[in-house]
Amino acid sequence: MAKIAVLGYGTVGSGVVEVLETNKDSITKRAGREIEVKSVLDLRDFPGDLIQEKIVHDVDVIINDPEIEVVVEVMGGVEPAFTFVKRALEAGKSVCTSNKALVAAHGPELLEMAKKRNLNFMFEASVGGGIPIIRPLNQSLTADEITKITGILNGTTNYILTKMDKEGSTYEETLKEAQELGYAERNPEADVEGFDACRKIAILTSLAYGSTVKFEEIRTEGITKITTKDFKYAEKLGYVVKLLATSCKENDKVYAITAPFMINSTHPLYNVNDVLNGIYIHGNVIGNVMFFGAGAGKLPTASAVVADVVDCVKHKGKNVMTVWSVEKLELGDADDEVRKFFVRVKGNVSDLSAVNAAFGNVQTVTVDGIDGEFGFITEPMSERAFAEAAKKIDMIHRIRIDETTI
Amino acid sequence: MAKIAVLGYGTVGSGVVEVLETNKDSITKRAGREIEVKSVLDLRDFPGDLIQEKIVHDVDVIINDPEIEVVVEVMGGVEPAFTFVKRALEAGKSVCTSNKALVAAHGPELLEMAKKRNLNFMFEASVGGGIPIIRPLNQSLTADEITKITGILNGTTNYILTKMDKEGSTYEETLKEAQELGYAERNPEADVEGFDACRKIAILTSLAYGSTVKFEEIRTEGITKITTKDFKYAEKLGYVVKLLATSCKENDKVYAITAPFMINSTHPLYNVNDVLNGIYIHGNVIGNVMFFGAGAGKLPTASAVVADVVDCVKHKGKNVMTVWSVEKLELGDADDEVRKFFVRVKGNVSDLSAVNAAFGNVQTVTVDGIDGEFGFITEPMSERAFAEAAKKIDMIHRIRIDETTI
Repeated sequence: MAKIAVLGYGTVGSGVVEVLETNKDSITKRAGREIEVKSVLDLRDFPGDLIQEKIVHDVDVIINDPEIEVVVEVMGGVEPAFTFVKRALEAGKSVCTSNKALVAAHGPELLEMAKKRNLNFMFEASVGGGIPIIRPLNQSLTADEITKITGILNGTTNYILTKMDKEGSTYEETLKEAQELGYAERNPEADVEGFDACRKIAILTSLAYGSTVKFEEIRTEGITKITTKDFKYAEKLGYVVKLLATSCKENDKVYAITAPFMINSTHPLYNVNDVLNGIYIHGNVIGNVMFFGAGAGKLPTASAVVADVVDCVKHKGKNVMTVWSVEKLELGDADDEVRKFFVRVKGNVSDLSAVNAAFGNVQTVTVDGIDGEFGFITEPMSERAFAEAAKKIDMIHRIRIDETTI
Repeated sequence: MAKIAVLGYGTVGSGVVEVLETNKDSITKRAGREIEVKSVLDLRDFPGDLIQEKIVHDVDVIINDPEIEVVVEVMGGVEPAFTFVKRALEAGKSVCTSNKALVAAHGPELLEMAKKRNLNFMFEASVGGGIPIIRPLNQSLTADEITKITGILNGTTNYILTKMDKEGSTYEETLKEAQELGYAERNPEADVEGFDACRKIAILTSLAYGSTVKFEEIRTEGITKITTKDFKYAEKLGYVVKLLATSCKENDKVYAITAPFMINSTHPLYNVNDVLNGIYIHGNVIGNVMFFGAGAGKLPTASAVVADVVDCVKHKGKNVMTVWSVEKLELGDADDEVRKFFVRVKGNVSDLSAVNAAFGNVQTVTVDGIDGEFGFITEPMSERAFAEAAKKIDMIHRIRIDETTI
């Protein structure tokens, strides 16, 4: 019997309890021992819930319980999660978490603490919900030099963008609907401003290169400025708009960005719609690989957390090595990155003089019913050169273009 | 320093040597030690090749070398690979293999041998080439009851079917072209008759349920009877034809089949073309996940083999538990499986009396230029009921339909 504790009885925490109960037999077989939730930390009580008798309000009860060998942290946020996780590791307990804020901020030091104590700190659910991506990066793609990671890593924004695309509704309407359906939080900033996806690409990039990408240093743009007009241009051009979190290695420098991109039907992530997540990885020997699935949701996320618990139970007393040092990975200057841009500019497409003067020859696009402006696509150019050229025109909006193909 | 030996210096074997050299630095970092190929077993000599000085013609040199801690078996075929792998394990060496014939025939007993000796027997490259799928099934999807696995697991046949679809060429022409390009072997039977894909779904299904699926017991049909006419009907219906290797669990019974299927654009594997492989998995809590990538090829396959070598080096003296017992998994009767069928029948679509008498109401389809016959799609029915009904009509050919959606 392996006894565990769950910190936080919210959506994911209750999912973990449910998954362990639902699949008890197969999980016992795979872990080699039965796994029992002994304690659940929450400020609230849950009268009538089967878990009520296991509820504790004081984390010390868990930390000081020598029977508990694995602690599941699913509270979210950096504090007090960070303090609790450190104390659990110090007390000789392995930790599994779904908390990307914690992992992006303190992953490598927690990994180091676990390693020193022959424990494990696992965080499969922190990126891509149920999709196995942390373990494949850490254990399966170890023969490769990763050259590119591009992901749709946030289900909320992907749901909003998919709805806007397919139904022509506005950002505000769609956000409201997503909030009513529980796909977006009342304070949706972390999702819609790209902060969530940014933390996730920071984690994946750190794992790919073995040192720490500071998420604060990743250029990050959200989807709040995307309008129905953008989607009309995109449709005319054969593109869709997706919030991509992406990093690549070029000339020994690693670049990363989180932003809305236009992608076409040859892009590996073109068909990743609604709340699905997708992650495309290119390695120098494996070539292209992709992973798709439910990027969020109670049970898929809990599935990933419980898989980590199984791994911790299987590896009791043995650290599963993860290469991610606290050493900082210095990102390349985002202004050096070269790509095409889609631009909307005030004026009439019959007069391209200003646009040509700033950008040279461009491919223009107009949409019936959108007047007083037109769109164009630049040749590949650096972010820096783009910013300079854009000053010379009466630009309304621009969206980057990602031309990855599979 | 970790010293290894490679058994067989063919495509994959030379790929393993190349990958270890190309990515030496990052592999050393991930393995924790430098990995060096000390010996390569081959009947041939390779004068001028850097590996020549490491060539040995007698496997005993490797078995009896106490410095060698991991043996890579990439010879293919059951014997002498099986004997060599057993001897390597008995001599205290972990083994990594890309050999699906060996794994499908003897996987669980080799796993057991490795476990007893605190060694590892790993076979990520045996299914899906470079795509991480064995390790995710074994270590990431451990919280789930797997309810369905559907894969395009053979690159050769997928290349042939994609070409026939897109270019309208015949099976014979396309096979010849695939052979000239090196995508198909001179004796293509293992691929085109579905035997290769069958072994792979046997391996995946065994891992999903923890006991042994005998590949010989999986109903297996190849692609040799698929004609350009079938593709014309498929196109008219919005389908493509793919060789699927699939298993599912229904009412506590596991069913498996390898055969050409028609699938439509909502199917998760619809866009898996050319030599790509794709694997769709449904778990009862994770929902749908998918994995795509290069299913074959020298470097992608070698990437997966080397990742296993890294894992073996990292886990020296520690067995990574794989749940796959020698106990036989009794498959459900394939005749009980229920699905729709596409059928081509002699006659004129204006006279449906025989078809209706045998199959009830059906959806018919005709293609301009294909005379003297027509097509129809049945309602869902068991294989047994289909076979009975088919006797009552003048059937030309039938293709199963898979209606999995994501």
